[in-house]
Amino acid sequence: MAIAPQWEAALQAVQSPPAQRRPGRPRATGHPTDRYEAKRKAILDAAARLFTLRGYEATSVRDISREAGISQATLYHYTGSKPEILAAIHNLMADELLPRMNGILQSDLSPERKLAEYMRAEMELIERHPTYTAAMRHKRWLLPGAAQEMREKRDEADRILDAILQEGIDKGVFHPFNVKFARLAIMGMSNYIGTWFSPVGPSTIPEIADGFARILLQGLLSASPHR
Amino acid sequence: MAIAPQWEAALQAVQSPPAQRRPGRPRATGHPTDRYEAKRKAILDAAARLFTLRGYEATSVRDISREAGISQATLYHYTGSKPEILAAIHNLMADELLPRMNGILQSDLSPERKLAEYMRAEMELIERHPTYTAAMRHKRWLLPGAAQEMREKRDEADRILDAILQEGIDKGVFHPFNVKFARLAIMGMSNYIGTWFSPVGPSTIPEIADGFARILLQGLLSASPHR
Repeated sequence: MAIAPQWEAALQAVQSPPAQRRPGRPRATGHPTDRYEAKRKAILDAAARLFTLRGYEATSVRDISREAGISQATLYHYTGSKPEILAAIHNLMADELLPRMNGILQSDLSPERKLAEYMRAEMELIERHPTYTAAMRHKRWLLPGAAQEMREKRDEADRILDAILQEGIDKGVFHPFNVKFARLAIMGMSNYIGTWFSPVGPSTIPEIADGFARILLQGLLSASPHR
Repeated sequence: MAIAPQWEAALQAVQSPPAQRRPGRPRATGHPTDRYEAKRKAILDAAARLFTLRGYEATSVRDISREAGISQATLYHYTGSKPEILAAIHNLMADELLPRMNGILQSDLSPERKLAEYMRAEMELIERHPTYTAAMRHKRWLLPGAAQEMREKRDEADRILDAILQEGIDKGVFHPFNVKFARLAIMGMSNYIGTWFSPVGPSTIPEIADGFARILLQGLLSASPHR
């Protein structure tokens, strides 16, 4: 997925100088696991920025360690090799999205509201993590095990959406349609925003998600043969 | 836009050995302009393949000339620098698409049929030129003049789609909706197929385009508040 020019400009502007290392100073206090996760996240952020701006192949582990302001040895300790960094970026996205999607499916909301919330979840993830979204287009460089894991997580997200659509059909709220085509149409609408959405644009993500859901639910025709 | 794994496999399989140069042999007969265009197209094909498989930054003009089986000097004569090759790929796509889209807009078809045909035009272009589609995600490397030209062509395609949607609303065939949101939803549905469509899959592009158009036109709800 391409990144919108507006995001690119924002990215270029916010590229901070490498964090200063302070040898000899006492370490910051806090739970060790929190510190570990924060460091790991900082490395993934740096990698996602570089993958987005320069491309995956053109970015070296040395580039990432410089961007994150740490040594290569420290980087390997926290995140491992370049394909492992890419896998970690993918997993972070999936692990943020799937519990929310499962929660929507299992909620008491109406099928049409579940559909709108599902679309909003996808679109808000893209809004929150534009560089991670862009980095995910490099999925062909994942190692086989990580690629398999991502396919399974993608399949789970697909199953959740199909279940929401089927529930709507079974309850008579939706008319019968090709569930797979509908799922792919919905995924396209949601994911395409990564190419055009501007954080400073006239519409917010919740507004766009609701607008898309309304168009999708009601359709464009003012009269329809199936009703 | 990412390229579907099925297309990647096909691409890897069809990578032909460099065309043999036959110095001293008489040149093939035919109109010089045809020969010129065929040569140019062969270079663009080679470049699009490499941009897709390796990425734009990781591909050199030398790589492209080798893949096309010609010298770098010959390549420069036909297509120019790497950003100029990228611009030529973009233009070839736009120049194939825009006349067809304009023809659809100016035809006597109903608004709903025009919409379905517009979506089919987008999707068939992606089907015919998967590597060109994938190469277009590198548009950030276009030189300023070429980038401006592409923005204008993208704007023209947007104007055509907006005109089709507005015509449907004006004629009362469509109910009033946010035309910009609808256009972006339609673009997402159409363009996303580049990430999942398989040429050997169960559905053809015309079937998918018609299925998408039906879902979009009729909507998912079996009853709708605006009717």
